Amino acid sequence: MSDAPVLLTPGPLTTSARTRQAMLMDWGSWDRDFNQLTASLCEQLLGILNGHASHHCVPLQGSGTFAVEAAIGTLVPRDGKVLVLINGAYGQRLAKICKVLGRAYSTFQTAEDQPTTATDVDRLLREDASISHVALIHCETSTGILNPLAEIAQVVARHGKQLIIDAMSSFGALPIDAAQVPFTALIAASGKCLEGVPGMGFVFAEKNALAAAEGNSPSLAMDLHDQHAYLSKTGQWRFTPPTHVVAALHEALRQYHEEGGLPARHQRYADNCAALLDGMATLGLRSFLPPAIQAPIIVTFHAPRDSRYQFKDFYERVKAKGFILYPGKLTEVETFRVGCIGCVGPDGMRAAVNAVAAALREMEVVDI
Amino acid sequence: MSDAPVLLTPGPLTTSARTRQAMLMDWGSWDRDFNQLTASLCEQLLGILNGHASHHCVPLQGSGTFAVEAAIGTLVPRDGKVLVLINGAYGQRLAKICKVLGRAYSTFQTAEDQPTTATDVDRLLREDASISHVALIHCETSTGILNPLAEIAQVVARHGKQLIIDAMSSFGALPIDAAQVPFTALIAASGKCLEGVPGMGFVFAEKNALAAAEGNSPSLAMDLHDQHAYLSKTGQWRFTPPTHVVAALHEALRQYHEEGGLPARHQRYADNCAALLDGMATLGLRSFLPPAIQAPIIVTFHAPRDSRYQFKDFYERVKAKGFILYPGKLTEVETFRVGCIGCVGPDGMRAAVNAVAAALREMEVVDI
Repeated sequence: MSDAPVLLTPGPLTTSARTRQAMLMDWGSWDRDFNQLTASLCEQLLGILNGHASHHCVPLQGSGTFAVEAAIGTLVPRDGKVLVLINGAYGQRLAKICKVLGRAYSTFQTAEDQPTTATDVDRLLREDASISHVALIHCETSTGILNPLAEIAQVVARHGKQLIIDAMSSFGALPIDAAQVPFTALIAASGKCLEGVPGMGFVFAEKNALAAAEGNSPSLAMDLHDQHAYLSKTGQWRFTPPTHVVAALHEALRQYHEEGGLPARHQRYADNCAALLDGMATLGLRSFLPPAIQAPIIVTFHAPRDSRYQFKDFYERVKAKGFILYPGKLTEVETFRVGCIGCVGPDGMRAAVNAVAAALREMEVVDI
Repeated sequence: MSDAPVLLTPGPLTTSARTRQAMLMDWGSWDRDFNQLTASLCEQLLGILNGHASHHCVPLQGSGTFAVEAAIGTLVPRDGKVLVLINGAYGQRLAKICKVLGRAYSTFQTAEDQPTTATDVDRLLREDASISHVALIHCETSTGILNPLAEIAQVVARHGKQLIIDAMSSFGALPIDAAQVPFTALIAASGKCLEGVPGMGFVFAEKNALAAAEGNSPSLAMDLHDQHAYLSKTGQWRFTPPTHVVAALHEALRQYHEEGGLPARHQRYADNCAALLDGMATLGLRSFLPPAIQAPIIVTFHAPRDSRYQFKDFYERVKAKGFILYPGKLTEVETFRVGCIGCVGPDGMRAAVNAVAAALREMEVVDI
């Protein structure tokens, strides 16, 4: 559908026609053909982070947050304690999950433009020996900030603690090698950098930790130990899978490999991000984060100061020109966000910048 | 894709081409157009059971089981006690959910060909005043048995207790009127009698019960109170919705109304069921349930006695002829199941019977 706007939102995002067309077939969830699809999916996902030797891939119905909650509920024992590292809304959500699940936790919060450092984590782990797990957002979508995963993972491992990584908006685009970066769980979802449609998440769970997790989960539907055990035994999902979403992700992975895998995906998103930043800079729009900590996933821009600027009006005008933007998620500063991910290239990003420019002109916004 | 086999499995099932084509567009989950889709969906779903005055419709990501767990976790207070009525695998699953969630419960089990009666429920509620909620499977998919919902609902209401109904495989095809049948929650999903694709469930929650349920849920992702509150306030799902699944269900509902709504859907499934039972009877295949308690959703057949019959072989042969069957789910008796639901009519069912006949001939199965 060429008349649908391009989604510059970091999931759901714009998918390719091929990916969507993969949903034109119905699959029997009990059938061998579908089981093979699931097995192939998990194999390919493990391949992306070089995790075959160390991790299982456990798919889960629902949005990414379901998979994050499932990972914490399954892999943190009931007497565990989680140190949650926060610099945005998704870090806050991790803490909320711990709270609702009744897992002990503490938080360490930095400003939204301030990555957590390995030094911080080292100090925090020395100060509180009761911490069993550290939970981290790799790329915090509320700003687009990148946290130093590899360094933090080394510190956590050196302390003999376990790391849970929400890599929702980075997995598939930013390199993570399970043989180099020690972690207990890494969570992502179908509708992000792999460019599938939303409807399922997946958790890479370290094999020994998953084997030891029987009975931890406070939920039946979100018990990753059971989900994995059943999948291993039968080849089937425990409960009805989102068959069309699975088929779409499988087709999206085919295109991912055709494009050149992670390096090519990373490069395209980096090019998108550069085209966006360059173009917006010429309009005078300032990005919230300094380049060094800006992940090429989503960019937060300061809203124009001009009183004629209203996000809602701006959004509608840009949408009418073919692009859907994202509202800001910061409480202190007025911002808006533009995603760099999805089935779009640098030319698309430049077209989006032109749409932004035209919308601001129409609104007579001059004081940027 | 005309070469894909017809799914005679009770969800996922065969959908129409129109329904699948509705997934060819990407939607922004924050966008007004998508919010309208969600609102329209909930409105229409409420209309099917005449629940506008009494209930809210709360959609939830994941399979039907996620929605069942969410309903119990949200609507049964932590000091509540659930009487679970069981005559099959899905009743067992209800009890398992109560157990995992740590809700007190007792069970009442009848044989798999024996509906629970209102008299039973009346006696059980008189015997145990601590019961706050009764949980019932309307049509138990493990056999296809129909439980007497209306009668049980009256008894539960007379005792001042609350009723939770798993109507996964009946909603949309068997009449349920919320103005006549008192209940606290009724749960169904996208990929059943409404003929959408799998990936979301929905819970009709009685308005007062839902309002009183704040803080009950032991889960963040599956908290229906929060999900509803956020949806009411913003028009958006709390976490990323399965946008394509939502769009497909919306399109499926359009066709549902065009077909003539519930009476027409019920009639087609009843015709399917009759065509199936008639055809299979001519082959000598005996259905497990007597007609009086057989819902027109899925039929369980006794497996042929012949030693040359093996389900796996039978399944593959019938599949090669264009139809996917379902294995039996009974522990005591060898059976297989055939669904009557999905985008298929009586002619399709007769073609399926012909495929079954041909498969049995090829296998030289004579002792039926």
